[in-house]
Amino acid sequence: MSRILIRGGLVITAAEEMLADVLIEDQQIVALAASDSAAAAGWQAESVIDATGRYVLPGGVDAHTHMELPFGGTFASDTFETGTRAAAWGGTTTIIDFAVQPVGGSLREGLDAWHAKAQGNCAVDYGFHTIVSDVNEAVLKEMDLLVGTGESTSFKLFMAYPGVFYSDDGRILRAMQRGAANGGLIMMHAENGIAIDVLVEQALAAGHTDPRYHGEVRRELLEAEATHRAIKLAQVAGSPLYVVHVSAASALAELATARDQGLPVFGETCPQYLFLSTDDLAAPGFEGAKYVCSTPLRPREHQAELWKGLRTNDLQVVSTDHCPFCFTGQKDLGRGDFSKIPNGLPGVENRMDLLHQAVVEGRISRRRWIEIACATPARMFGLYPRKGTIAPGADADVVIYDPAARQTVSAATHHMNVDYSAYEGRELTGRVETVLSRGSVLLDDGRWLGHAGHGVFLPRATCQYL
Amino acid sequence: MSRILIRGGLVITAAEEMLADVLIEDQQIVALAASDSAAAAGWQAESVIDATGRYVLPGGVDAHTHMELPFGGTFASDTFETGTRAAAWGGTTTIIDFAVQPVGGSLREGLDAWHAKAQGNCAVDYGFHTIVSDVNEAVLKEMDLLVGTGESTSFKLFMAYPGVFYSDDGRILRAMQRGAANGGLIMMHAENGIAIDVLVEQALAAGHTDPRYHGEVRRELLEAEATHRAIKLAQVAGSPLYVVHVSAASALAELATARDQGLPVFGETCPQYLFLSTDDLAAPGFEGAKYVCSTPLRPREHQAELWKGLRTNDLQVVSTDHCPFCFTGQKDLGRGDFSKIPNGLPGVENRMDLLHQAVVEGRISRRRWIEIACATPARMFGLYPRKGTIAPGADADVVIYDPAARQTVSAATHHMNVDYSAYEGRELTGRVETVLSRGSVLLDDGRWLGHAGHGVFLPRATCQYL
Amino acid sequence: MSRILIRGGLVITAAEEMLADVLIEDQQIVALAASDSAAAAGWQAESVIDATGRYVLPGGVDAHTHMELPFGGTFASDTFETGTRAAAWGGTTTIIDFAVQPVGGSLREGLDAWHAKAQGNCAVDYGFHTIVSDVNEAVLKEMDLLVGTGESTSFKLFMAYPGVFYSDDGRILRAMQRGAANGGLIMMHAENGIAIDVLVEQALAAGHTDPRYHGEVRRELLEAEATHRAIKLAQVAGSPLYVVHVSAASALAELATARDQGLPVFGETCPQYLFLSTDDLAAPGFEGAKYVCSTPLRPREHQAELWKGLRTNDLQVVSTDHCPFCFTGQKDLGRGDFSKIPNGLPGVENRMDLLHQAVVEGRISRRRWIEIACATPARMFGLYPRKGTIAPGADADVVIYDPAARQTVSAATHHMNVDYSAYEGRELTGRVETVLSRGSVLLDDGRWLGHAGHGVFLPRATCQYL
Amino acid sequence: MSRILIRGGLVITAAEEMLADVLIEDQQIVALAASDSAAAAGWQAESVIDATGRYVLPGGVDAHTHMELPFGGTFASDTFETGTRAAAWGGTTTIIDFAVQPVGGSLREGLDAWHAKAQGNCAVDYGFHTIVSDVNEAVLKEMDLLVGTGESTSFKLFMAYPGVFYSDDGRILRAMQRGAANGGLIMMHAENGIAIDVLVEQALAAGHTDPRYHGEVRRELLEAEATHRAIKLAQVAGSPLYVVHVSAASALAELATARDQGLPVFGETCPQYLFLSTDDLAAPGFEGAKYVCSTPLRPREHQAELWKGLRTNDLQVVSTDHCPFCFTGQKDLGRGDFSKIPNGLPGVENRMDLLHQAVVEGRISRRRWIEIACATPARMFGLYPRKGTIAPGADADVVIYDPAARQTVSAATHHMNVDYSAYEGRELTGRVETVLSRGSVLLDDGRWLGHAGHGVFLPRATCQYL
Repeated sequence: MSRILIRGGLVITAAEEMLADVLIEDQQIVALAASDSAAAAGWQAESVIDATGRYVLPGGVDAHTHMELPFGGTFASDTFETGTRAAAWGGTTTIIDFAVQPVGGSLREGLDAWHAKAQGNCAVDYGFHTIVSDVNEAVLKEMDLLVGTGESTSFKLFMAYPGVFYSDDGRILRAMQRGAANGGLIMMHAENGIAIDVLVEQALAAGHTDPRYHGEVRRELLEAEATHRAIKLAQVAGSPLYVVHVSAASALAELATARDQGLPVFGETCPQYLFLSTDDLAAPGFEGAKYVCSTPLRPREHQAELWKGLRTNDLQVVSTDHCPFCFTGQKDLGRGDFSKIPNGLPGVENRMDLLHQAVVEGRISRRRWIEIACATPARMFGLYPRKGTIAPGADADVVIYDPAARQTVSAATHHMNVDYSAYEGRELTGRVETVLSRGSVLLDDGRWLGHAGHGVFLPRATCQYL
Repeated sequence: MSRILIRGGLVITAAEEMLADVLIEDQQIVALAASDSAAAAGWQAESVIDATGRYVLPGGVDAHTHMELPFGGTFASDTFETGTRAAAWGGTTTIIDFAVQPVGGSLREGLDAWHAKAQGNCAVDYGFHTIVSDVNEAVLKEMDLLVGTGESTSFKLFMAYPGVFYSDDGRILRAMQRGAANGGLIMMHAENGIAIDVLVEQALAAGHTDPRYHGEVRRELLEAEATHRAIKLAQVAGSPLYVVHVSAASALAELATARDQGLPVFGETCPQYLFLSTDDLAAPGFEGAKYVCSTPLRPREHQAELWKGLRTNDLQVVSTDHCPFCFTGQKDLGRGDFSKIPNGLPGVENRMDLLHQAVVEGRISRRRWIEIACATPARMFGLYPRKGTIAPGADADVVIYDPAARQTVSAATHHMNVDYSAYEGRELTGRVETVLSRGSVLLDDGRWLGHAGHGVFLPRATCQYL
Repeated sequence: MSRILIRGGLVITAAEEMLADVLIEDQQIVALAASDSAAAAGWQAESVIDATGRYVLPGGVDAHTHMELPFGGTFASDTFETGTRAAAWGGTTTIIDFAVQPVGGSLREGLDAWHAKAQGNCAVDYGFHTIVSDVNEAVLKEMDLLVGTGESTSFKLFMAYPGVFYSDDGRILRAMQRGAANGGLIMMHAENGIAIDVLVEQALAAGHTDPRYHGEVRRELLEAEATHRAIKLAQVAGSPLYVVHVSAASALAELATARDQGLPVFGETCPQYLFLSTDDLAAPGFEGAKYVCSTPLRPREHQAELWKGLRTNDLQVVSTDHCPFCFTGQKDLGRGDFSKIPNGLPGVENRMDLLHQAVVEGRISRRRWIEIACATPARMFGLYPRKGTIAPGADADVVIYDPAARQTVSAATHHMNVDYSAYEGRELTGRVETVLSRGSVLLDDGRWLGHAGHGVFLPRATCQYL
Repeated sequence: MSRILIRGGLVITAAEEMLADVLIEDQQIVALAASDSAAAAGWQAESVIDATGRYVLPGGVDAHTHMELPFGGTFASDTFETGTRAAAWGGTTTIIDFAVQPVGGSLREGLDAWHAKAQGNCAVDYGFHTIVSDVNEAVLKEMDLLVGTGESTSFKLFMAYPGVFYSDDGRILRAMQRGAANGGLIMMHAENGIAIDVLVEQALAAGHTDPRYHGEVRRELLEAEATHRAIKLAQVAGSPLYVVHVSAASALAELATARDQGLPVFGETCPQYLFLSTDDLAAPGFEGAKYVCSTPLRPREHQAELWKGLRTNDLQVVSTDHCPFCFTGQKDLGRGDFSKIPNGLPGVENRMDLLHQAVVEGRISRRRWIEIACATPARMFGLYPRKGTIAPGADADVVIYDPAARQTVSAATHHMNVDYSAYEGRELTGRVETVLSRGSVLLDDGRWLGHAGHGVFLPRATCQYL
């Protein structure tokens, strides 16, 4: 048995802040003791980390990434190797990626393909949601099986992207009914893609081809509408619902209404919606392509509403929807036709720091930071208490965070495999200093000690939020 | 230094459930360790409590009690001695009572009087809110002082009881403005007492004198109205607001609307509103007098809305508003005139058990039970992390709870100094087994080991909820 | 020039009640005079109708009928001849029916087919909405043309009935955009038919084949959802919207929200939703088939909400959706499978009387009766001021109504060509006494004087409501 | 019998637009006939007015004026003589003024005093609401009497102005209960005056004495709060409610919510809130004093919401709250202390023209113009159908309006007895050409033919809106 002792830091969880020493045995946190106690004084360990003046945090849980995703004729530029390494650099020690059911194929085939991409390549632990492209009887039975074994307990459907991932309301209803029965959580991309495609066609016909039109055709009202519809379908099915990447204030209002009614409806937003806006999308020339993602960036005034939603718990999770495409060679595909720009932004490395910046600026408390970035995503997707907290029995995924350090975000220094940063030049207070994953030090003060293959696949329980 | 070790229980806090041993040094919890860890195995202590198969909970925090309150020509029948002992029997180890500013007097005088009642008499720790009967310049300055020293950081105003505690909207606004400046939290009894008094007069004139008319004249709409008004005044003042004893679904809806807007508005309800109804108030003969309290009990269908509010966090706290009057000799004062029945119900001993019953019945989770009964009241009133959680550094206020035991509530067996129980005959699952307050065992498996004077006065920080 | 003078009645319009004589020259109302005035005294006419003690009303405008509609393998049992005669018996002198675009065909073909059915056969004047089964470029151009000539200025789309009339959200959006441009009004059958079909299939598979399951699978939430979606699509298109046959309280709530926002969104309900309920649909045996229509009847408590909506003007129109199928030989088609019961109820003859009953019972005022049954439907569909009012210049479509007469509704005495009445045995106060259409007396005290072919086709202006 | 014939105009009422000739016998409109009809052709009259190319409108009904009101140590500068003459110049032929119950006195005394001021002095017909300063048993009995005789059927209460007109919630409730019983309509000045007075005191203490602070201390939230409270009290009392001079968007939102619930709650706004804003109140120097009224002017963005409320019928009436004080000599009283500026604006002459301007600008339809300015105020206050419409039997109060004329508003040309215009220099399209009151021509193309004493007192029925 090997022991690591983290001494003298301020341990922050979703619920507590305490000056406590943390004792790790092998891969687990086994004990916490008040730093000034006799109990702590008596502890011994092979390795002692001095965390005085530092925060001691649970490793981040990013519940929405797309490593190596095939999209629009290309692939997201981070592999599981590069992407999970970047995650760790940013203080995230668990990702949940999406295995895609191939058209005409099974969920099994999708999962097999994604296991093959990830296995042996990940620096941190990982799990898989399943993207259901075609809800049919065979697939509904596979859902039962996957929830039963815990291989995948959450299933993403799309109200957008007709002809690609799109499910109609009948298929959505069937999947929700099955989730209500087997405990699987339905995740929804809520945009009315059928209506959006009409507007896309009309915009292109009118010669509106620049990146900013991506934001204009994907109307806020059509995100709000789809969100409302998904909620009503979930009500009919008697199932919970998790809406991914909420960007519009009016979509958030639908979530708030649902929660006022006591419905088990949950919402996720992403750093890009909290920190970026249509101003970025409308950057001169083709620069805006860097900011093309779906749901799209919204006008700046939506940001305050999203922060409010995070405070009121109408939004419960901040994930990244990390899906990077290089500006040169990938985003390029959409020059002259915004609809061909691959949708997605890099972010897995930036999430913990950006949210800490919100703490610094007084938007959220320190505890809420950990709740939305670590504890709730872990609970929501059946990883708690193994992930998402610092407590006896939890995996020893720990981040030592220097709250006073300063850094400037830049593609020149980041570790994601993409040629630009969506936050280029942004100055932030706070920095990840040391990262442990199941008791192994992956990163220490700028030195990378991790390795591909350290990360293991995580079977999951069902949603524990309720 | 003395050490106590609680072994093998399921530690439950607002955020975590863990099989962990809890180590106490003198008056504090100093460490937690996974029960099966080497760290735990190495611990030694003078005293070891076996909690196998039991819950290990933070002691309950009841933020709303009225021991010995003078009201309607009599006094609440529990003294600080009897009331705090009963609290401990029920698993509550902290109470916050209300010191009343005497008419024409100062807050200081009120606090002095209440200190005199409590000091040396309490079995558990206690603090004081201040009831402000007369908002004037001198009182506003006293508020600054009390918040500064922490002697009292929360101030209760009444929109009801004209001629007694009533403050008009101007006084309320001034007090809220001062709270916004000094950090003091305004607590509001939100009923439109001016309008209610018209209806009382009309009811009595019509010969409607039975206890049930108490519920009829105190209209739900007039609780909702006052709640709305208090929220608007707080918005004008820029201050947070804590609404006490919310009983009406429509008042709760006002809180939900405020929270949707991101306002720092909080709500408390009480077991009587969750478990009793106007059916009780309308009991034959004068029996209904046992259930006369203000805000009044509401029709049964309000209960589901209150439970929903507790789940959606539109209500944050369950306190008791414990204010017992004996059926014989006290409630009697209102025979033939419901308006003369002393307002109040006993409950300080029943709260933790009743809420556990709600866990058993699936209304709330175990963690939410601890959050609304322990952690949030402690945070709300500046006692966290000393009270309300099981964590290194917290006071060793711990309850060992047997979740499988059965009990029947009865005045014959309860410890409150009142001749009836509002929950007489109710069968509950779960029972307090052992209670520690700052490391002292007050109660162990039916034996009382506590003593008057163990409890100390608690200075408080300002509201930590935000 | 022929003159008719209606003397001494109480003239009621949407706005006024006046004791006035009404002077008709040929086909038009040309003057009104206070009954006691010298002006009135001086009037002469070939024919004088004494309306003392009677109401003098504009003829009813039923904006939603389906004569001879092919549906579910059969045809609505009223022809234009029998149906318009029955309308006149019930005080309705204008109907707007629906010409159906054939699958794969043009709007023109649909209109030609319906003109052929109606021309020369109608007892009262008639117009046509167009049901658009397939929104495509050619159809959008036809819409322009039809609005331009006034042949049809309103276009009905279906969110229900996939594979029959169903339009997806993209087609709906395109049609709304065109309506926004050319002034055509989009009418919507708002039910999520895609989701409903899943529930139908599941119900039948579970052996739930009785008529009452028709109501259960067509969930209220799915009417509300579709109503919300139609509103949002109209907002995106910048077009007004008219929602037909609103039956669910929650769908009405969506309309109210839209109107609070100032959106040009309108709603129609029908007598069956105001007077019947799922109690009827659940009648023993196959009796419930008489009450199968879509949207379906709702639980009784929805009625009060619909009446409220009529009072608050969140609902603007009461039409009948008259679409009769005989119980024997037609409704029969669905024995053993509720999904095969032809959808529709008879009602064109009962509407004015049923709504007068609501006046008698104090639900609506006399003026509101005329507004929702005559004036607003005329305005909404471009027939005002020719139809829907008693004013100089209006068509002389006049009903003399005896407000004190008593009648019992029965299939034995009604004039619709259907073997049952949805209101069999219902006792009503008030009865149509005399009916004029463009100055011709069609009906006088029980004698039928009208004839097939009197009624002419009505070109229409665009919606005049805004 | 004398006859006047108005030929060839476009008659506009709340419900109809018709090319019709209007026949007047003595004081009443007795007949309308289509202009091109034989009936019209046959009419003869002593006097014929050619209205070709003109609108023929019912005379305006201004339901809220304060002639000669004693306020803040001075008197409103228009007497009943000058004020009603100005009203007629502006196309208003009926006013309802407010008789004020003297402190310590009876409603009778107030009415006697106001009758004395008005009788023999008015150019147009007039009625009286009663301002109830002190709700007590005697006053409640007087209310019954006044409603019974029709002398005054509407009663205004104030939630503002403590120490002057202010009624507490108990008194309001009692008055509403009485109104619910006797049919009297409660009119409410809805501002939380108790809270406002705290803010006034604080503003003055801070040296904030300029007129613009009048707007700042009378917070929008405090109008919304009082509006909500008045609605809830009316709900408790079971009475209808009419809220005067709504200026805040959030107060309007309370009315909309009430109307969505089907409550008989009505709202009035005034031209100043539709056309002026805090920009005017913040005019340099003491100029802002011209715009001091209560409720105060609001920021410009509220205007769009009020117009929306007029379109959605959440606001039903536009009155003027005409209460002029000369800039020199009266408004002056508040130099150096905004709280001493007499509250009120001139406007009785401008209302019809300003609202026509809104027709020209497309904000409301012509019919809606007449509805909010003539028909609904008449209905609301029991004057319909005598006033507010052009129909057989109505009083011959008629305005011939030139919709194409241009005018510039100015104190130099207006007829109100006040030394400034709130709309100085504003260019308007449309102008009153001829005004008849009960068949007498008061004004014809710039010549004044009326005289003091023509106007008679109008007893009134109860509210006919419901």
